[in-house]
Amino acid sequence: MSDQRRFAVVILAAGQGTRMRSDTHKVLHPIASRPLLLHLLDRVDGLGAEKRVVVVGKGREQVEAAIAGRDTTTALQSEQKGTGHAVQQAAEALSGYDGPVLILYGDTPFVETETLGRMLDRLNGDGGPGVVVLASTPPDPLKYGRIILGDGDRIAKMVEYKDATDEERAVRLCNSGMMAVRANDLFRWLDRVGNDNAAGEYYLPDIVNIAAAEGRDAVVIEGDPYETAGVNSRAELAHLELEWQRRRREQVLDEGATLIDPESVWFAYDTKLGRDVTVEPHVVFGPGVQVADGATIHAFSHIEGAVIGAKASIGPFARIRPGTQLADNTKVGNFVELKKANIGEGAKVNHLSYVGDASVGAKANIGAGTITCNYDGFGKYRTVIGAGAFIGSNTALVAPVSVGDGAVIGAGSVITEDVEADALAVERSEQKGIAGWAKRFRERMTRKAAE
Amino acid sequence: MSDQRRFAVVILAAGQGTRMRSDTHKVLHPIASRPLLLHLLDRVDGLGAEKRVVVVGKGREQVEAAIAGRDTTTALQSEQKGTGHAVQQAAEALSGYDGPVLILYGDTPFVETETLGRMLDRLNGDGGPGVVVLASTPPDPLKYGRIILGDGDRIAKMVEYKDATDEERAVRLCNSGMMAVRANDLFRWLDRVGNDNAAGEYYLPDIVNIAAAEGRDAVVIEGDPYETAGVNSRAELAHLELEWQRRRREQVLDEGATLIDPESVWFAYDTKLGRDVTVEPHVVFGPGVQVADGATIHAFSHIEGAVIGAKASIGPFARIRPGTQLADNTKVGNFVELKKANIGEGAKVNHLSYVGDASVGAKANIGAGTITCNYDGFGKYRTVIGAGAFIGSNTALVAPVSVGDGAVIGAGSVITEDVEADALAVERSEQKGIAGWAKRFRERMTRKAAE
Amino acid sequence: MSDQRRFAVVILAAGQGTRMRSDTHKVLHPIASRPLLLHLLDRVDGLGAEKRVVVVGKGREQVEAAIAGRDTTTALQSEQKGTGHAVQQAAEALSGYDGPVLILYGDTPFVETETLGRMLDRLNGDGGPGVVVLASTPPDPLKYGRIILGDGDRIAKMVEYKDATDEERAVRLCNSGMMAVRANDLFRWLDRVGNDNAAGEYYLPDIVNIAAAEGRDAVVIEGDPYETAGVNSRAELAHLELEWQRRRREQVLDEGATLIDPESVWFAYDTKLGRDVTVEPHVVFGPGVQVADGATIHAFSHIEGAVIGAKASIGPFARIRPGTQLADNTKVGNFVELKKANIGEGAKVNHLSYVGDASVGAKANIGAGTITCNYDGFGKYRTVIGAGAFIGSNTALVAPVSVGDGAVIGAGSVITEDVEADALAVERSEQKGIAGWAKRFRERMTRKAAE
Repeated sequence: MSDQRRFAVVILAAGQGTRMRSDTHKVLHPIASRPLLLHLLDRVDGLGAEKRVVVVGKGREQVEAAIAGRDTTTALQSEQKGTGHAVQQAAEALSGYDGPVLILYGDTPFVETETLGRMLDRLNGDGGPGVVVLASTPPDPLKYGRIILGDGDRIAKMVEYKDATDEERAVRLCNSGMMAVRANDLFRWLDRVGNDNAAGEYYLPDIVNIAAAEGRDAVVIEGDPYETAGVNSRAELAHLELEWQRRRREQVLDEGATLIDPESVWFAYDTKLGRDVTVEPHVVFGPGVQVADGATIHAFSHIEGAVIGAKASIGPFARIRPGTQLADNTKVGNFVELKKANIGEGAKVNHLSYVGDASVGAKANIGAGTITCNYDGFGKYRTVIGAGAFIGSNTALVAPVSVGDGAVIGAGSVITEDVEADALAVERSEQKGIAGWAKRFRERMTRKAAE
Repeated sequence: MSDQRRFAVVILAAGQGTRMRSDTHKVLHPIASRPLLLHLLDRVDGLGAEKRVVVVGKGREQVEAAIAGRDTTTALQSEQKGTGHAVQQAAEALSGYDGPVLILYGDTPFVETETLGRMLDRLNGDGGPGVVVLASTPPDPLKYGRIILGDGDRIAKMVEYKDATDEERAVRLCNSGMMAVRANDLFRWLDRVGNDNAAGEYYLPDIVNIAAAEGRDAVVIEGDPYETAGVNSRAELAHLELEWQRRRREQVLDEGATLIDPESVWFAYDTKLGRDVTVEPHVVFGPGVQVADGATIHAFSHIEGAVIGAKASIGPFARIRPGTQLADNTKVGNFVELKKANIGEGAKVNHLSYVGDASVGAKANIGAGTITCNYDGFGKYRTVIGAGAFIGSNTALVAPVSVGDGAVIGAGSVITEDVEADALAVERSEQKGIAGWAKRFRERMTRKAAE
Repeated sequence: MSDQRRFAVVILAAGQGTRMRSDTHKVLHPIASRPLLLHLLDRVDGLGAEKRVVVVGKGREQVEAAIAGRDTTTALQSEQKGTGHAVQQAAEALSGYDGPVLILYGDTPFVETETLGRMLDRLNGDGGPGVVVLASTPPDPLKYGRIILGDGDRIAKMVEYKDATDEERAVRLCNSGMMAVRANDLFRWLDRVGNDNAAGEYYLPDIVNIAAAEGRDAVVIEGDPYETAGVNSRAELAHLELEWQRRRREQVLDEGATLIDPESVWFAYDTKLGRDVTVEPHVVFGPGVQVADGATIHAFSHIEGAVIGAKASIGPFARIRPGTQLADNTKVGNFVELKKANIGEGAKVNHLSYVGDASVGAKANIGAGTITCNYDGFGKYRTVIGAGAFIGSNTALVAPVSVGDGAVIGAGSVITEDVEADALAVERSEQKGIAGWAKRFRERMTRKAAE
């Protein structure tokens, strides 16, 4: 399979997705923290398409915003008149281009790059077929259109489920709708597709018959059912998410991480785990997480946009937000939130703290209940804590502020001014006592309650 | 099916439930945060029963406490002498009533209102049957009594599993025990039921033969196996809970919510989610939760008794307790507990806070580590925070106290007196420093450790 | 089965475990918070072995550290020359011993004590067999060696899968590799095992043929496939963990605990739950937890090394660390961390607190945001809180420190000196206000932002 093969891609994404019951465009619903359409574009990118056209209808702006910067144009299908009609809308965007075209679906994201390559290679291969159709053999093929094979990989007949005979329905090879066709063939054939059917729509698969009339074969490439699974409802979305996660969990285990309860760990599309990483039950990874070798992610942790160093220990009950870097051997304990925080080697934030817009030096110890006050209602400000500093419990650090290397902050302080290295800083009044007050208070309250 | 049909209900709930190994009465164990018996009464209420009798034995007080206010009486079965004997105990409570009676089981909660209606309609229908039996065809019918059908829906024979021939055991139609019979027939027939069997018990199904001797048919209505599933052990309780949750999750997805991991989201019986609500993995809903359109419930959230506004963002790691109202566009972040809190539109409680017995005005910002001190060991007191107020981090608000609109509280303050609108309030000492103290302390401690 | 039977155990643990891709020795990976090898030794201990030898290779030190104090010796297999060769390495450790030997595998931990007993009893039983082989009938026996039975439990043939005919492969009885043989037979026969095979290895099962040549039978004891399941990859580790957890959850339900979502509750090998304990979804138990009758563990709790009293209420979002004792009727709420804490009867730690190295008296109330400052960067110090004390919110208790019975601490205090019984102690400045400051600040910041 050549990486240099020339081709264009047309992605259909004009469907209303009414069964999703959503204001979000169907192809923008996420799986593994990434919209369906971007998963598909990632796979297309693996082959290096010359041109990329997404056919959109209602919700065009949402789609355009999502693909901004991906060198992909849109074509508008203003009326829903069938898949053939939809592909025709891409004609202008592809004018002057006469190479192979892959026709894909924005709601069917997980076709493998390698499979797309096989489709293109087959189009360029033996017998010069007119159309390459991607098929699969799903365990439950009930409503899909069936493909009846002739000699070898040649398609004898493609039939919609509703039009199929019992014998044809017994065939389990199904049409995914995905195709490879040369642009000059495609648009010529599409011009001849009619809409003389119950729905009055122009159907893309009709080009198979039109090609046959020109003596051109349609052939099949078979993919995994996972590659041809589409999303038309929230239940299908959840189902495909689960299947994605299952495959990812298997990979992660193979690569040498321990997942005590694989089914309760949720990965993002780009999560990277090193060797000998242990992930306890009930952990959620958002996008942008890398975990280095030997780190442990304890139960009930929620991590996004973070680089986690070797042998770090995270959680349980840690919440790490984007922009965080944890050096090797760091320790982040329970009920701790980090955001845009840079935590130095061997530093500890063990309990009940919020460290945001901050850097913490190596081996510093951040006491329980420490809060970086990074926001004044208008701007965000940074806190800088030096190496080996010791921040006493229940300390508020009012940013911008810095605590020097090796400094100590007394418990319960509000620190508004910078603290020098090796100094002690404390903000506190004198402890006062009133003997017997509590007893008298209880007596008074008890009398009151009795009244 | 008429909503005005007249009928009474007898619910058997006298069984000991020894396999539960529990001090809680079997029919009061909850599924989806609601006791089994109340689930059943809810379904009965859908039809509007004229009279409701629960037959109880040991643990009567627990049952009576649970059904208080539900216009339902109890009848005592002081000895366990079989299902027929149990139903007889309801005779006094139904004296003077001669209409249809539904006989149900307190440990078999999920019979559908519509199915109960079909049972009553059948009793009133063709051929004037004497008994209508609810049956189902479970996937694994092993130990249930079998029903051998005659013509149409007529029962030819009902046979206990232990007495059944191999041929009869091969029949998968099972007796649920639930029946519809007219009161005047029921108690006349029950009087004739004997206890000449191994256990010396009076069996309710024996009325089928007694009715036959009077030339009256017993007929079958078939329900889903889920409707006839009973709870006799903790394992069965967990199994039925799972099945309830599965069905609810499917509904929720159909109605237009996203559940990334449906299997890790646990609903209460009355949870309501709007359209385009997203629920991340690992979320638990207690009773009384409504979530409006477009809200997001992030992972690891625990929510009870709360109304959550449109486009609100909750969690991860949020704990929302009863009596809480969150207006539209509110944000509740990690390690935040709300209780009887009224949070105004666009207000934020982002981190590590406890806000209880409080109201927070629109667009107010509650800093990390804010605590409403609502309890003095005797009473609970309210905190009122105005619109646009800014509460600095690590603030303790000693209720009763109010903070006016637009006021600012300095970080680390203990606020005991009301704060005027637009004012700054702060409770803080001067920050003091001792240069070199930390270094000397380390040296001293290191020497000590070496000694 | 006699508890006094004499026997020795040889456990093979020299395999490289390369498919684990781990720096941790394969037999030291944990299931239910306990290394595989220790699970196996626990089961062996149930029978009281006279001698225990673990044959180790690479990673010997790790294994020796793990079994320290368990009266078990190691024997080094410096080259990987097959299972027969591995067992031979134990000869020296067993010199002078001539009783029965159980040959087990460090990566196959869950063989039942009762099954081991049956193996020994069979070796001593009818016909004086030379070898007793533990077999099982797994649902998918694909790659395992097959056992072809002769008369009764006598083995006619043992065949590796790769050498088996189709007919032999159709047999589902599989060799687990575990055996019982008398020491004097074992080492005599091993001396005759050759390595004339493709891998050039000495295979333990070859002794079956050598025994046969002496007219000694090999016989089969059958175990559950779970008992013969080994761990060679992280996926198999996760799979066996899941199976362990499933069995434990069933037991726990049978014993009278409610698990609302059994599949989301993870037990350690030694977790003990009392009757009428309720565990909500998403709970993780580490080692050393006992929960007394009637306690409730709410969702999202993480508990290790703790004794939890009757009717205690834990969580949601509680994190309990080792060395904690909770008396009856205690309440530990959300975002609370306890470590080496002794909490008296009826005491409450309801929100957002860290209580470590502390004792809390009966009926004391620890306010939200309370932190015990137990660490100064060098040592750990204790906090003692008396019965009925009331600790106001956001209090820092700088240990070592004590608060007397019935004392009250004002909110937001830093307590550094002991507080007498029934006294009030408070550390706080005066609340100050600046009218209009917040308004002027907003105006200034808004102007700045506009610039």
